[in-house]
Amino acid sequence: MTDFTATRARFDLPGGLVYLDGNSLGPLPKAVPAHVAQMLAGEWGTQLIRGWNKCGWMDAPRRVGDRVGRLIGAPAGTVVMGDTLSIKVYQALAAALALVPDRRVVLTDSGNFPSDLYMAQGLLATLGDGYELRVVTPETVAEAIDERVGVVMLTEVDYRTGRLHDIAALTARAHAAGALMICDLAHSAGALPVDVVASDVDFAVGCTYKYLNGGPGAPAFIYVAPRHADAALPALSGWMGHAAPFAFEADYRPGSGIERMRVGTPPILALAALDAALDVWDGVDLHDVRRRSIALSNAFIAGVEAACPELELASPRDPHQRGSQVSFRHPHAGAVMHALIARGVVGDVRAPDILRFGFTPRYLSDAEIAQAVATITDVIRNKRCDETYVASGRVT
Amino acid sequence: MTDFTATRARFDLPGGLVYLDGNSLGPLPKAVPAHVAQMLAGEWGTQLIRGWNKCGWMDAPRRVGDRVGRLIGAPAGTVVMGDTLSIKVYQALAAALALVPDRRVVLTDSGNFPSDLYMAQGLLATLGDGYELRVVTPETVAEAIDERVGVVMLTEVDYRTGRLHDIAALTARAHAAGALMICDLAHSAGALPVDVVASDVDFAVGCTYKYLNGGPGAPAFIYVAPRHADAALPALSGWMGHAAPFAFEADYRPGSGIERMRVGTPPILALAALDAALDVWDGVDLHDVRRRSIALSNAFIAGVEAACPELELASPRDPHQRGSQVSFRHPHAGAVMHALIARGVVGDVRAPDILRFGFTPRYLSDAEIAQAVATITDVIRNKRCDETYVASGRVT
Repeated sequence: MTDFTATRARFDLPGGLVYLDGNSLGPLPKAVPAHVAQMLAGEWGTQLIRGWNKCGWMDAPRRVGDRVGRLIGAPAGTVVMGDTLSIKVYQALAAALALVPDRRVVLTDSGNFPSDLYMAQGLLATLGDGYELRVVTPETVAEAIDERVGVVMLTEVDYRTGRLHDIAALTARAHAAGALMICDLAHSAGALPVDVVASDVDFAVGCTYKYLNGGPGAPAFIYVAPRHADAALPALSGWMGHAAPFAFEADYRPGSGIERMRVGTPPILALAALDAALDVWDGVDLHDVRRRSIALSNAFIAGVEAACPELELASPRDPHQRGSQVSFRHPHAGAVMHALIARGVVGDVRAPDILRFGFTPRYLSDAEIAQAVATITDVIRNKRCDETYVASGRVT
Repeated sequence: MTDFTATRARFDLPGGLVYLDGNSLGPLPKAVPAHVAQMLAGEWGTQLIRGWNKCGWMDAPRRVGDRVGRLIGAPAGTVVMGDTLSIKVYQALAAALALVPDRRVVLTDSGNFPSDLYMAQGLLATLGDGYELRVVTPETVAEAIDERVGVVMLTEVDYRTGRLHDIAALTARAHAAGALMICDLAHSAGALPVDVVASDVDFAVGCTYKYLNGGPGAPAFIYVAPRHADAALPALSGWMGHAAPFAFEADYRPGSGIERMRVGTPPILALAALDAALDVWDGVDLHDVRRRSIALSNAFIAGVEAACPELELASPRDPHQRGSQVSFRHPHAGAVMHALIARGVVGDVRAPDILRFGFTPRYLSDAEIAQAVATITDVIRNKRCDETYVASGRVT
């Protein structure tokens, strides 16, 4: 059993705050500052250029990738870190499309994170030649997978509503139609048990600054199923993905397996912070995390709904249809959140009317959930919203 | 006049080392660890998600970009930080090609850094449709610019030989032929006076871990000439480059000017380190740096050539044709460098036979150059190379 009192003690959380925004930016793990300080003074400052070999910097994207891989069911050597999630979406989609050269349609849904859509739009415009991004509602993805679809590109957990896709079922359907699956795990990695092997996705990507606590703008990850790893081409063919980066050859030759998904010089400082942040997962069972996340979020929904009928649940009521967040709608979502944050309950809002609350059992207690419910009740029942703010119509 | 004793005092340099590899990885500025520690505990740890607005994280790519911009002659608001140099090369080239839609040839030279070539190869393969990367020798770039060339893509300073292109003249020639110029400033920014306005380049890109001391894998920069800033499309169209990232619209709309060259969530920890590293430029005149770099490198060449005729100068002898590095050829370059590093003189090697030494006046003294010459002389004259290493044929 995971000891959640112990995991909470590993975070540096400011007092007086109920932090329900770990689905946007996870808090600082206590181990990070010392590890980063050691990397700066003990590695960069002391070893200088020799750090690339002596301090394992060159291998850090793979080594840290394996640590993230263990949290998403990926075998060793199938995940690599670097860049941002948007860049990794571009690489995964370009590689996937090249594997199904006779197909021109990318299928996604309107619940996907906009940057994934934007990156796909940028790639498809670059490819030209009849490529099409087909965007359907989350509920109709399965039926929209037809013989023209080359790649299905989905984010498992909807960033607004928390709605959870059945990725294994959708992947089976995609494969049956001859299409490939790219799964964005931004709101899944560290939030839910994920098993990229069992779900059989072809590519998975994700960020590490939410439930993985890597810090603002922490590096992204990409997983490529072993069956594709030596066939997939990265499109962003940088020297670190070359078969022999230090041979400085004139022509690109893709490296072996997941190595080719590396692009430029790896961000060592950010990888050091993330590496230390991942220590927080020692002894944590993601099934325990999931059970407790459901308990906390169910209690939260019950408490808010009992006291505040003005708030309309925007997330699926069935916890098995939901990621690790709960969203409510309110016409003045921005003003409500502003009032909540002023009272120490931190969530966020998403346009036009979504109040969003993340559940992160490794550092949230039952008492904090009760406190959040009480504060929301006070703000809503006693109309604590700033009228000027409401009148401004601002969302955030 | 720049006070170079004062600038040296701002670096944390290990004792007993003559560091001639600041052209590969600059040393740690003393201000960095405290600034990073403050960002971790005082910003991330304390403000959590609120840091994006309260601590200026969201604007950091532009704000730090302006600081880098001052070192390359770029007006405020024309430079933005993020990603890696390889990614920025891809963006610049994709944007440039879209601005000259009737041309299909990208001209570059064999002295360009391989990752620039590889990224171009990846982009041109994605574009398909008759696009061609034409690679000529550095000496024949000017004459190779013809009416079929859409974009000339060059690195100002050759990473192997230090040969310096006359970017202003080549840009004028490119423009006269109706082509655009992309200049990679990886070995120029912080090494030489650079003026992207005077040279009239269309795009410039660079990294910040060499002469700008941002640390291993520090973020890259991109400059777009104001005349293109609202027309250039980034290809890598991420949410941070959207006109309204937090409106979460379904379709990409490019942000205003340089903002559109942002891609994903910015790497705040790395930007904090770089921001502090840039303090080292306070009171530094790059013309002074250049003068002293020439004095140091001339003294180095004279000393090495007088004592070691076995070493063949691979860099231009005329310092005005040379960046801030000096390279020599030796058939056992790897073994020689191995012996030098063991004796505290750190340079690096580039295949097949290049010994490379960087000159960074902000922290190098005349005495260190003399010591480097003496050590090289000892290694060469007294055959200090490890025979096993020589026999192995290893380059690095």
